[in-house]
Amino acid sequence: MSNALVSIVMGSDTDLSIMKAATDVLTQMGIDYEIDVISAHRTPERAFEFAQNAHKRGVRVIIAGAGGAAHLPGVMAGISPLPVIGVPIKASISIDGWDSILSIVQMPPGVPVATVGLNAAKNAGILATQILATGDDMILDKIIKFKEDMKEEVLKKSRDIKNKEF
Amino acid sequence: MSNALVSIVMGSDTDLSIMKAATDVLTQMGIDYEIDVISAHRTPERAFEFAQNAHKRGVRVIIAGAGGAAHLPGVMAGISPLPVIGVPIKASISIDGWDSILSIVQMPPGVPVATVGLNAAKNAGILATQILATGDDMILDKIIKFKEDMKEEVLKKSRDIKNKEF
Amino acid sequence: MSNALVSIVMGSDTDLSIMKAATDVLTQMGIDYEIDVISAHRTPERAFEFAQNAHKRGVRVIIAGAGGAAHLPGVMAGISPLPVIGVPIKASISIDGWDSILSIVQMPPGVPVATVGLNAAKNAGILATQILATGDDMILDKIIKFKEDMKEEVLKKSRDIKNKEF
Amino acid sequence: MSNALVSIVMGSDTDLSIMKAATDVLTQMGIDYEIDVISAHRTPERAFEFAQNAHKRGVRVIIAGAGGAAHLPGVMAGISPLPVIGVPIKASISIDGWDSILSIVQMPPGVPVATVGLNAAKNAGILATQILATGDDMILDKIIKFKEDMKEEVLKKSRDIKNKEF
Amino acid sequence: MSNALVSIVMGSDTDLSIMKAATDVLTQMGIDYEIDVISAHRTPERAFEFAQNAHKRGVRVIIAGAGGAAHLPGVMAGISPLPVIGVPIKASISIDGWDSILSIVQMPPGVPVATVGLNAAKNAGILATQILATGDDMILDKIIKFKEDMKEEVLKKSRDIKNKEF
Amino acid sequence: MSNALVSIVMGSDTDLSIMKAATDVLTQMGIDYEIDVISAHRTPERAFEFAQNAHKRGVRVIIAGAGGAAHLPGVMAGISPLPVIGVPIKASISIDGWDSILSIVQMPPGVPVATVGLNAAKNAGILATQILATGDDMILDKIIKFKEDMKEEVLKKSRDIKNKEF
Amino acid sequence: MSNALVSIVMGSDTDLSIMKAATDVLTQMGIDYEIDVISAHRTPERAFEFAQNAHKRGVRVIIAGAGGAAHLPGVMAGISPLPVIGVPIKASISIDGWDSILSIVQMPPGVPVATVGLNAAKNAGILATQILATGDDMILDKIIKFKEDMKEEVLKKSRDIKNKEF
Amino acid sequence: MSNALVSIVMGSDTDLSIMKAATDVLTQMGIDYEIDVISAHRTPERAFEFAQNAHKRGVRVIIAGAGGAAHLPGVMAGISPLPVIGVPIKASISIDGWDSILSIVQMPPGVPVATVGLNAAKNAGILATQILATGDDMILDKIIKFKEDMKEEVLKKSRDIKNKEF
Repeated sequence: MSNALVSIVMGSDTDLSIMKAATDVLTQMGIDYEIDVISAHRTPERAFEFAQNAHKRGVRVIIAGAGGAAHLPGVMAGISPLPVIGVPIKASISIDGWDSILSIVQMPPGVPVATVGLNAAKNAGILATQILATGDDMILDKIIKFKEDMKEEVLKKSRDIKNKEF
Repeated sequence: MSNALVSIVMGSDTDLSIMKAATDVLTQMGIDYEIDVISAHRTPERAFEFAQNAHKRGVRVIIAGAGGAAHLPGVMAGISPLPVIGVPIKASISIDGWDSILSIVQMPPGVPVATVGLNAAKNAGILATQILATGDDMILDKIIKFKEDMKEEVLKKSRDIKNKEF
Repeated sequence: MSNALVSIVMGSDTDLSIMKAATDVLTQMGIDYEIDVISAHRTPERAFEFAQNAHKRGVRVIIAGAGGAAHLPGVMAGISPLPVIGVPIKASISIDGWDSILSIVQMPPGVPVATVGLNAAKNAGILATQILATGDDMILDKIIKFKEDMKEEVLKKSRDIKNKEF
Repeated sequence: MSNALVSIVMGSDTDLSIMKAATDVLTQMGIDYEIDVISAHRTPERAFEFAQNAHKRGVRVIIAGAGGAAHLPGVMAGISPLPVIGVPIKASISIDGWDSILSIVQMPPGVPVATVGLNAAKNAGILATQILATGDDMILDKIIKFKEDMKEEVLKKSRDIKNKEF
Repeated sequence: MSNALVSIVMGSDTDLSIMKAATDVLTQMGIDYEIDVISAHRTPERAFEFAQNAHKRGVRVIIAGAGGAAHLPGVMAGISPLPVIGVPIKASISIDGWDSILSIVQMPPGVPVATVGLNAAKNAGILATQILATGDDMILDKIIKFKEDMKEEVLKKSRDIKNKEF
Repeated sequence: MSNALVSIVMGSDTDLSIMKAATDVLTQMGIDYEIDVISAHRTPERAFEFAQNAHKRGVRVIIAGAGGAAHLPGVMAGISPLPVIGVPIKASISIDGWDSILSIVQMPPGVPVATVGLNAAKNAGILATQILATGDDMILDKIIKFKEDMKEEVLKKSRDIKNKEF
Repeated sequence: MSNALVSIVMGSDTDLSIMKAATDVLTQMGIDYEIDVISAHRTPERAFEFAQNAHKRGVRVIIAGAGGAAHLPGVMAGISPLPVIGVPIKASISIDGWDSILSIVQMPPGVPVATVGLNAAKNAGILATQILATGDDMILDKIIKFKEDMKEEVLKKSRDIKNKEF
Repeated sequence: MSNALVSIVMGSDTDLSIMKAATDVLTQMGIDYEIDVISAHRTPERAFEFAQNAHKRGVRVIIAGAGGAAHLPGVMAGISPLPVIGVPIKASISIDGWDSILSIVQMPPGVPVATVGLNAAKNAGILATQILATGDDMILDKIIKFKEDMKEEVLKKSRDIKNKEF
């Protein structure tokens, strides 16, 4: 049995190149995760069973990525009591991403999905960490540190640009 | 046990005022139907069970109406082998209907939903009849008659408008 | 005279690379089909005659693909009593596909087109098969088998991703 | 037989309240017109026959109004050699008018429709007059006069607003 | 000093009629909350100070609602290490809500906002509760109970609709 | 002095690659045309003077192409009494062509622009010919012939596709 | 001769109810303004002459409001060297305001329009004041004071909401 | 201390390739500027401090470029009394630029951002110059000269195209 706190699921393995960014953040934050391919439409029983049991296995947050008529995050959120983070993926034949954003964000009353930006798997990883941090101050400190590092990086770019010739 | 050939499902009973137009057509065509409220997000087990068994109970076509992030038609289509007609419903707080149309029409490869226009439950009823007509010539005759009647109605309007004063 | 149960029509032979996916599915399902180039705008008489006679020749389902101001599916549906499946095609100079989707899905009351996703000719082929299955249980079994195979494919990907290193 | 130079057609008599503005302009300009209800989807034979014969009856310009998946202007333009002016109508259950605009303006190569703005039947009447004016200098003078009158009206509003208290 | 675990902020008190639904859920779940009017644009210092200190005061989750060019959720998320839930509000003069949804969901890498649907303050309250539940099993039980109640409500509607006459 | 019946203007010479298709049609139809670069924003006096005088020089139809906030067709239509055909051009940094379509088609009452599809300069040339045909039956015959040729071309493709192996 | 520093122009006097908010701000700021109805399409000479002379009459900023295919701001900006503020107005038959926003904001290189939000005439008045403040420190002080007042108003609402019962 | 009249800020140094066009214009106009990387979300304190002090350092206009949920221009405008020009940048994973345009243009009452077109940094530089010209007639002369040069360039293209063979 895994000790994953975060479960990352996606509708197709072609989404892995996008969703990998979530695993990178979680690794960097030292959060255990698991990763799986589950299709709301092609493996509905598995999606159902997975969502029913995730919290019983110790998972605390689900990250679900999908494109087009992107139902996986919503289906997870309908069944599981856990917070579900939805990552709208811009599919190759898409309506510029409108389809996946709207299919994920516009959930009905009672069944929220925490939607992040188009292809924003990195942000999904950060949000999952922030969610876990609400119950663990050591993780909160990591988030505070992470934000400090981002700031430093931008400040460095600020110094660099001032030294540039135009 | 019902003898319904068409099963009309909707995510909420507030959709009934829209979806009723499908029942009117089916009644007019003499097609047995059943009607139910099933939520992909709030009663996922029931949605699952319903979709798994509909064809075993003799249902031949499913009509599913939903608004917002409209997953019900897609979830039905993922589980059931039957043709699923999706009716995108313009919810009160909607993105002008874009959300429900895109959530229904942009299904992934392998899992089609036969999408009709926004709030077009009447057309869903006609399409269901046309689908049944592929295996029953008496129903096909009804469709041919229905189209004749529509034509007559427009031709009458054509005669009327020519007699109007402007 | 052909024995085609499904007739696949498209507005231009440049759409063939997209529409071919429908023929692949029908071949795999063992469903006889025919394929033709018919333009609602450039060969209107032919479109008219074709739509008036298809059901008399034994065709049961029409699949029509078109891009831009995509009228072919709607014109077919206006004339023929058969169920018409519309495939919106993303033209090279398109408004991101919005034009073909809206021109096909938003049909007026009385004249439905069963719209599938953008460029989703494969799904059109599957939907045509599902429609024929409403009158033929042997075809229904093929659909059930097809869905099982899809499921297996995803389950295999699920196993594969768990064995990957990150 | 009528002497109409302009033929105004619409898909449904509910469009008359919008399309009437075209008749008002033509009356004001002294251009003979006829008006009819023709549905591309519900009376396809009539649409076909009408478009094939209009120029033989002396009609020079067709104005066609339609909403939703608005095919009437395009079907007219496919069959008739006459210039066709398309009026996109904002239907009651529409996608904010996007559907009718895109269904009319995005015609394929070879088959133009002269599209005016949403519900802009008045402009359709003016454009029809301008088109007829290319072969008749007396009509051109009427257009020049019409534009002068519009200018005067705006100049009067300019004088009025300057006398207003704020 | 308050004991609020959830802080609900909005850009204007006119948003209160929407945002109140979040307070109702939190009250029902027994979660302490606070509510405030803070404008990212009109009271930037206060927004800054608020976001810097919220986690020090014991707040665990921020819910921020805003319309139009909706920057409040993003500004909160830039400064605070806490998870921020963004509620896009459909302003009276809005672009159908597109403006607030896109201004909230499309955050840059490193700074996620957990976006819910248009005007979906109720879902924001539920999501906040789910987030807190990741660190508190008693709250998780409340969520499980809440989902059971929703299911019962839909099942009751299902029974009711079957008894209706059509 | 030229004998041009059609004047083709564009906002920038970079639009020439698109607008050339209009000249090809007019050449094929044997219609005299002129071509010019005129910017509504950068050479406003010239635009003004051009539009005021075109009909005095014998021009009968203006074709104006422009991208982005595409004002050239509307400015021509405001000043000239001639029918103006607008060609929305998809600029390199565009909002997918929405900007040019809407800037051209949504003209105010009194000032129509005959809008064709995105980049549809060929259709603009055909429409200009159809407009001139309203006053010249020999041109009308050319249009009828042109439509016959198009039909033959599609019928040939229809024969070809039936001989293809799949 | 007027002493107006700001000239407010609009395409139609029906826009006055929206544009009045700009006059209110300028009155409050003590900035002289003039107001006029000028149509880029119906009074092109006047628009031309106005834009050519405004800076010679002492005007420093032009505010132009228009709806639909909104060309007035761009036409002003093409002719006048002054900064032009564009107010996109949501017309009654509009594409939800998309048309006026895109017609105003997407100006070609060399001819900017300073675009504010939909119907945002108040913000146009503030921006005009800010622009004048770049050359007049006393006006800058008024802006600083104005922002302080706004802040106080929000802080008061913040205090009020905390005293509310829920 | 710099003598910059215009301050150009951007959210990320990857925006520099776009924003450079603003510096080119300002150099050409002889206007002193400074350039910096400031993130509203990653360096909020710096953004705050920068905006609070810019006018005290002699800066008269701020140009801020940002993509996606583009908050930098609005945050600047909330804090600084100076006119802020917003440049919406089309990010690589964007919703066709809609996100940045709407996040910048749809600012709330009281806090305008002078929005230019997508990626239109050149126009931002021109607009900044026009704004400074309201208090400095020598700069106004440069703008008048700049517009003359643009006109000449188009007139030259007009002459060139007439000499082209087609």
